Amino acid sequence: MQYGFGVDVGGTSIKLGLFSQDGTLMEKWEIPTHTEHGGERILPEIAEAIEACMQKRGLCKEQILGIGIGVPGPVDDRGNVNCCVNLNWGVFNLHDALGILTGMKVKAGNDANVAALGEHFAGGGKGSESSLLVTIGTGVGGGFVLHDQVMNGAHGVAGEIGHIVVNRDEPLYCTCGKRGCVEQYASANGIVRVTNKRLSESDTPSSLRDFPKLSCKDVFYCAEQGDSLAKDILEQTYDYLGEAIADACCILDPELVILGGGVSKAGQVLLDGIHRHYQAYMFHACKHTRFALASLGNDAGIYGGFKLILG
Amino acid sequence: MQYGFGVDVGGTSIKLGLFSQDGTLMEKWEIPTHTEHGGERILPEIAEAIEACMQKRGLCKEQILGIGIGVPGPVDDRGNVNCCVNLNWGVFNLHDALGILTGMKVKAGNDANVAALGEHFAGGGKGSESSLLVTIGTGVGGGFVLHDQVMNGAHGVAGEIGHIVVNRDEPLYCTCGKRGCVEQYASANGIVRVTNKRLSESDTPSSLRDFPKLSCKDVFYCAEQGDSLAKDILEQTYDYLGEAIADACCILDPELVILGGGVSKAGQVLLDGIHRHYQAYMFHACKHTRFALASLGNDAGIYGGFKLILG
Repeated sequence: MQYGFGVDVGGTSIKLGLFSQDGTLMEKWEIPTHTEHGGERILPEIAEAIEACMQKRGLCKEQILGIGIGVPGPVDDRGNVNCCVNLNWGVFNLHDALGILTGMKVKAGNDANVAALGEHFAGGGKGSESSLLVTIGTGVGGGFVLHDQVMNGAHGVAGEIGHIVVNRDEPLYCTCGKRGCVEQYASANGIVRVTNKRLSESDTPSSLRDFPKLSCKDVFYCAEQGDSLAKDILEQTYDYLGEAIADACCILDPELVILGGGVSKAGQVLLDGIHRHYQAYMFHACKHTRFALASLGNDAGIYGGFKLILG
Repeated sequence: MQYGFGVDVGGTSIKLGLFSQDGTLMEKWEIPTHTEHGGERILPEIAEAIEACMQKRGLCKEQILGIGIGVPGPVDDRGNVNCCVNLNWGVFNLHDALGILTGMKVKAGNDANVAALGEHFAGGGKGSESSLLVTIGTGVGGGFVLHDQVMNGAHGVAGEIGHIVVNRDEPLYCTCGKRGCVEQYASANGIVRVTNKRLSESDTPSSLRDFPKLSCKDVFYCAEQGDSLAKDILEQTYDYLGEAIADACCILDPELVILGGGVSKAGQVLLDGIHRHYQAYMFHACKHTRFALASLGNDAGIYGGFKLILG
């Protein structure tokens, strides 16, 4: 029996998974991310964690197909990393660096793209030929998978759906340096920002005013309870996301759109809302493109990492 | 020596090319498109034209790699055509239909996507790993090529950059049924429409008023001569195209953007204008994505058709 490792590197923790060749997750665990000193401990600690797992299970290197790893930054097809700000990483080749430490084959990708591969392969996209994952979390990200291959792009940033411009009149800058990106309105942070702005601009009565420190979840809760302002804010959110996803689908024409990320825990109400606005922004041929919710949650990254190795 | 045919079916004429295996165009010619009676004569006449060419040159079927064909409508990876309005075609499998008539291998694609493959393989995109062709003509279309494969999409409409929404406040409908598509402003028809609207809305003096029936070329000419209104209209055109291309590049992250179609004959001034606005709408990682002009003109479709057959 052969095995493979999937690794998902985040700013605070690193998720690891051991998979058998047939895609079964045998074991998963986490280690903390040490970002100090240019993040120099991150790769040696991943190598140690993998070595410890193999020792515990009596696995030898010949039984391991390799290590697939997703990191929060641009990664090109050759494994070149170009600054992962959250890890304090600069520019280097991740295939070589982790390969030397472990003596195993390494395949790396951007975390959102690797998660898209995971959902495509083992989650909400299972069985489809092509899928676009849209992750709505702290930010808005995404990844596109076609024929089991995730698209990385020439600069390792393909699938950045969060930075499609939906409001040409926005005075504030997005973290990416542009203005009017969908992420500025429809991410968890964006929804809270828009809500606080709307509350401060008027005296409209709203149960949203009862929360001393408002979260994105509160906005969904209030809308569910019938609060008009909260409903209106979410309708606008769905409209922006519907437009951005329709723009992406004009270009990619995927079989399936998968909604993931923390905000997607709102479930069917979010899916229905986005889909309604998507249809208004989409031409006939793609009006009935299927929408689904992501199903792997925080494990999408390790599943995708393993799939990178399977090829 | 082996050969292949590239065919580009338009609403008024069909372009055909005979290529040698190494990609040299040996001969090209055109036949009229007969769209009456559901376009039933189109495929038999293509088969006849190919047969006549082979007879003239003394070529036998064993020497022909196959026929690659681009048609004006959605075509999926399996050759299924879903209504080519301009040809009066309904739903059928083009691989099978033309294959039966010729006894040769057939590969079909959407005309814009096939042209993108042609420019990638033998024109402005030669040598690049991935390229996005944006055709600015009567409409705005496009196609994306990655690792020598053109992306067709699940419904055969991938690369439809012309229908990215750039103006949420547009009251008029685009031919696609949406409102505010970039094609409504930045195609040849769109530029003329916008210009006539601007002229009727004000009394601003402009040399554009001297043309009894204004064409897109006239707008470029007046701008070149220093006419303020014409310059202003083109600046807005470049802005809309810059935004739409930046949105597409967030998703695809191509190595190269190629500008083609009739309007691209304006040349460097158009390229510089679009590129300037693109940069304002693009985040750091893709700010320096290369832009080039298409170089195959009306032959892009036959080159792409031949490349479809090469695989």
